[in-house]
Amino acid sequence: MSKVAVIGAGSWGTAFAIVLADAGNEVTLWARRAELADAVNSTHENPDYLPGTPLPGNIRATSDIAAALEGAEVVVFATPSQTFRDNLAQWAPHVPEKAVMVSLMKGVELGTLKRMSEVIAEVTGAGPERIAVISGPNLAKEIARREPAASVVACADETVAKWLQDMCHGPAFRPYTSTDVVGCELGGAYKNVVGLAVGMAVGLGFGDNTTASVITRGLAETARLASALGANPLTLMGLAGLGDLVATCSSPLSRNRSFGEKLGQGMTTEEIYASTRQVAEGAKSCSSLRALAEANGVDAPIATAVDLVVAGKITAREMMQAFIARDTKAETD
Amino acid sequence: MSKVAVIGAGSWGTAFAIVLADAGNEVTLWARRAELADAVNSTHENPDYLPGTPLPGNIRATSDIAAALEGAEVVVFATPSQTFRDNLAQWAPHVPEKAVMVSLMKGVELGTLKRMSEVIAEVTGAGPERIAVISGPNLAKEIARREPAASVVACADETVAKWLQDMCHGPAFRPYTSTDVVGCELGGAYKNVVGLAVGMAVGLGFGDNTTASVITRGLAETARLASALGANPLTLMGLAGLGDLVATCSSPLSRNRSFGEKLGQGMTTEEIYASTRQVAEGAKSCSSLRALAEANGVDAPIATAVDLVVAGKITAREMMQAFIARDTKAETD
Repeated sequence: MSKVAVIGAGSWGTAFAIVLADAGNEVTLWARRAELADAVNSTHENPDYLPGTPLPGNIRATSDIAAALEGAEVVVFATPSQTFRDNLAQWAPHVPEKAVMVSLMKGVELGTLKRMSEVIAEVTGAGPERIAVISGPNLAKEIARREPAASVVACADETVAKWLQDMCHGPAFRPYTSTDVVGCELGGAYKNVVGLAVGMAVGLGFGDNTTASVITRGLAETARLASALGANPLTLMGLAGLGDLVATCSSPLSRNRSFGEKLGQGMTTEEIYASTRQVAEGAKSCSSLRALAEANGVDAPIATAVDLVVAGKITAREMMQAFIARDTKAETD
Repeated sequence: MSKVAVIGAGSWGTAFAIVLADAGNEVTLWARRAELADAVNSTHENPDYLPGTPLPGNIRATSDIAAALEGAEVVVFATPSQTFRDNLAQWAPHVPEKAVMVSLMKGVELGTLKRMSEVIAEVTGAGPERIAVISGPNLAKEIARREPAASVVACADETVAKWLQDMCHGPAFRPYTSTDVVGCELGGAYKNVVGLAVGMAVGLGFGDNTTASVITRGLAETARLASALGANPLTLMGLAGLGDLVATCSSPLSRNRSFGEKLGQGMTTEEIYASTRQVAEGAKSCSSLRALAEANGVDAPIATAVDLVVAGKITAREMMQAFIARDTKAETD
């Protein structure tokens, strides 16, 4: 049993707090808003993000960051990527000196083009043995219902990865270890962008042949960029790459796919933001991933096109026509 | 414009005849039953397998195999895998001496464990430059509706692959070339088996996290066997591997997924055969693929478990429990 702080009480942070609690840990869930923390403590559910799911008794919520982090052996971050650096700078003084920090986040920082593990390292000065990521086909609502799921726990230090694996292994949650932090993070970030592209195809009325082609090309694009950044391409063929991508693209529950569907149906990004509370991470990170690919000389047609659609510079229909109309060639060219 | 014979008037043979006709070829569609050939010629649709889809005027049907094959530059086979060797032995004397033979089939022969391209080579004595396969995310009903789709045309002789590519390239059908015949065929055969496993998970009520995990593990198993047989593992990450697998597993139209769903709901193989006209190729080839893996010393837990469920030796629930319950380990072990 370990003392774990989960920072961020959105749907995925809350669902992962359930995984940790089910595995027997003492979990503190930090919510930005005191009302949400109070509601969690009084009703034992998260009325805003996972309504109807009873939370185990070993989850306590607080909106006091110092109290949340006090004595934590592991700190799990599940907050929006683009504001993470500034937030972490404020939280860092309260993070216990030896605590391992785990990112559940799936974005790449605009401007700096840094992955979240890199932001943690820069802001806290922690070494690679104190930084991990967890990523896989883990739709929050299914995890919260305790449906069987597998995931990847990646840390450069394999001993730490195994320690975290034991910590979150439960009857419905099977973690596998990896030392490929870069591959896991890129898989998680890119799948949101490919999920947007698949959603656009669905919104335009295309069928499973088309979406399967977008998924295939999208994973190849992810693997190209990941390899260029030093990741193991096999990681992208695993749960944190292919697995997460397929879950996101198959599920009507996925926020990124839903966002893409609305773009495919002709809504603008502004109209979609005005109509929903949920964040579609891919609508932010498409721009970072496109820039990261360009900076590394990697061809990234899907991230580029998604970025242009999200920015309102081309329509989803124009994107899909370009995807279909390219010249025939050898598949591995 | 080429003269093409399509042997087999099921849904995929008929849909691919449409692709070839749309691309401007003169297509003869052979149906085993004279009544079906007559119906195709008189109504210009295939009432048994693609009802409601008008067929182009440059498709003519016949049940006379000699007439179908006479003067054909390309012969495309789309018939059941397990009876193919015996049928081909009868047809072979009518195949023109220089005709290229293309397999659309996705099975592995029981007993001999041969792929369909191997059966063609053995029965006809044709060299590798006259044998090709076409495989990809190509659900027949979507192809028939002219929804955009991509596919892989594989032949050991790249010039022949390019010639076939030009022959079937149309506004809605994008063929890519490859020289990896083995990889394409194994991707096509294995996806039916993984599709059955995914169907079982769906039939048992599991969600997208679970099915994504089955797809991920299934593709890894496919790539392991394909590599052992000399294929390029990258082929399995492309349209004929991942793409075809995802289309099959996503689509309620897929026969293999539907068959698996019924197994997951508790029906026996015999009960399913009694209730449907359609063939689920995976229910036959799971046994061949399991044997092929064993003969090559490759670990194939999904093909093995599917074979046991289809044979009635374990239940779909027992299979999925075993899938979930294995010990935690490193992902790439």
